[in-house]
Amino acid sequence: MAHVTIIGTGNMGQAIAGLVAKGGHSVQALAHADADQAVTGDVVVLAVPYGALADVVAQRAEQLAGRIVVDITNPVDFATFDSLVVPADGSATAELAAALPQSRVLKAFNTNFAATLASGAVGDLPTTVLVAGDDAQAKELLIDVVASGGVRAVDAGSLKRARELEAVGFLQLTLAAGEKIAWTAGFAVVS
Amino acid sequence: MAHVTIIGTGNMGQAIAGLVAKGGHSVQALAHADADQAVTGDVVVLAVPYGALADVVAQRAEQLAGRIVVDITNPVDFATFDSLVVPADGSATAELAAALPQSRVLKAFNTNFAATLASGAVGDLPTTVLVAGDDAQAKELLIDVVASGGVRAVDAGSLKRARELEAVGFLQLTLAAGEKIAWTAGFAVVS
Repeated sequence: MAHVTIIGTGNMGQAIAGLVAKGGHSVQALAHADADQAVTGDVVVLAVPYGALADVVAQRAEQLAGRIVVDITNPVDFATFDSLVVPADGSATAELAAALPQSRVLKAFNTNFAATLASGAVGDLPTTVLVAGDDAQAKELLIDVVASGGVRAVDAGSLKRARELEAVGFLQLTLAAGEKIAWTAGFAVVS
Repeated sequence: MAHVTIIGTGNMGQAIAGLVAKGGHSVQALAHADADQAVTGDVVVLAVPYGALADVVAQRAEQLAGRIVVDITNPVDFATFDSLVVPADGSATAELAAALPQSRVLKAFNTNFAATLASGAVGDLPTTVLVAGDDAQAKELLIDVVASGGVRAVDAGSLKRARELEAVGFLQLTLAAGEKIAWTAGFAVVS
């Protein structure tokens, strides 16, 4: 069993906490107001918007050292909804990994709408969580945690692939905002 | 009914030609050796690898003027399989549009494996062709042609979204090459 900290109590934080708990793992849920509570999880999911990552790093970088840190963000420019705000050849995850050199940073959950994590389904298909990162052991642990909660998880490659995962997440958001897909649906991964 | 030229007779060219013909449209199929035959289609699908686009432009730019030109490429660096060869903030389609200022250039089909265009299915789900471009009328025509062949097609936004579509195509190729998904499967779009 893993012990997982979820920082952020929005839709995504709640859905991920539910998934983790369903798998029989223990959850520490931390809200914004819980800045004085220390992180205790072996895995720490930063279920916050991209713009809040810098604050989390500023507050908790030392606590995150030695832990697996999961970035779920889609760094969309919400003013234009026409581009990302991270460098075109980089990713939010690459920035986070640079800011947390003592953590093992993964990308995951950013291609999943909260509803599909809660239901375990994208339409009639099982939800798949795509996980990217450079630490094979960390990826395996997160994949096991997700799978134990009844949701498929797939190793999507190295940390560099966070760039493509953020493109998928962004495209999916534009399709939903444009009413081409429902917020309960989106991209399904058929194996 | 539309008249569609397909340049390229590989797996993708054959699958797209089959789809177009199934919809009752006329097809002109041009192979590499047919450089002396003029393009006659209102819609011209460049079903060639990224590396061959420059040759097509050099040979046929004048013939492509005034026509709808469809780029299907995934400009992957196949030496490393770890990045694209186009500028990180651009796309193969943006390059093609710049080289063909008198054509209406669209991105489509690059997120579909050939087998899923031929079968009309990604696993148990219908295949969806994502179409991006700046000319609404051109997109509508291509979407109608694809739909008449029995495959769903969705407007995925402006030409800028070709960047994200190429990221999706690249990620899907890496997942298939890594045996995480089958070449007959991949990303399905659930509406």
